[in-house]
Amino acid sequence: MSEPPAIFVGRKSVMNYVLAALLQFDSGAEQIVLKARGKAISKAVDVAEIIKRRLLEDKVEVKDVKIGTELVGEGENARNVSIIEIVLGKRGE
Amino acid sequence: MSEPPAIFVGRKSVMNYVLAALLQFDSGAEQIVLKARGKAISKAVDVAEIIKRRLLEDKVEVKDVKIGTELVGEGENARNVSIIEIVLGKRGE
Repeated sequence: MSEPPAIFVGRKSVMNYVLAALLQFDSGAEQIVLKARGKAISKAVDVAEIIKRRLLEDKVEVKDVKIGTELVGEGENARNVSIIEIVLGKRGE
Repeated sequence: MSEPPAIFVGRKSVMNYVLAALLQFDSGAEQIVLKARGKAISKAVDVAEIIKRRLLEDKVEVKDVKIGTELVGEGENARNVSIIEIVLGKRGE
């Protein structure tokens, strides 16, 4: 299976990313991945929950949640940040 | 299997919760659950990653990550907040 389209959750409003995800599903994607790091992790969970509970209830479910660490920056400024990847997919796929 | 001990990640520093988790493992727990809601979700992921990568590498792994929604407050003040539950467990259990 090819990699599902990724939506990077950052500083924009939650609804911005919700809309991006809905457009992906609407244009035929069976799954999408919400990716975020650092403080945006909480926002990525909000995005997933709003899609799942309010907008595509009974149609979309959380397929997988992964957490991890990524090295950001270079040299002296390098630091580890936490990341999350939430896979949302149509039910029954 | 009985419910593993829960650590509620809130406003204290990350290291506070890391220490609480280490103490649980040290006193014999095979698994622990980190629970957080709202903006503390990012911090719970940080706690899990620090335990897994820096302190108990090769000994502890992420067993499960769940996201969900909880109703907080009452009446007019009621609102939905996102939650996360991260299960950490000793490897090979």
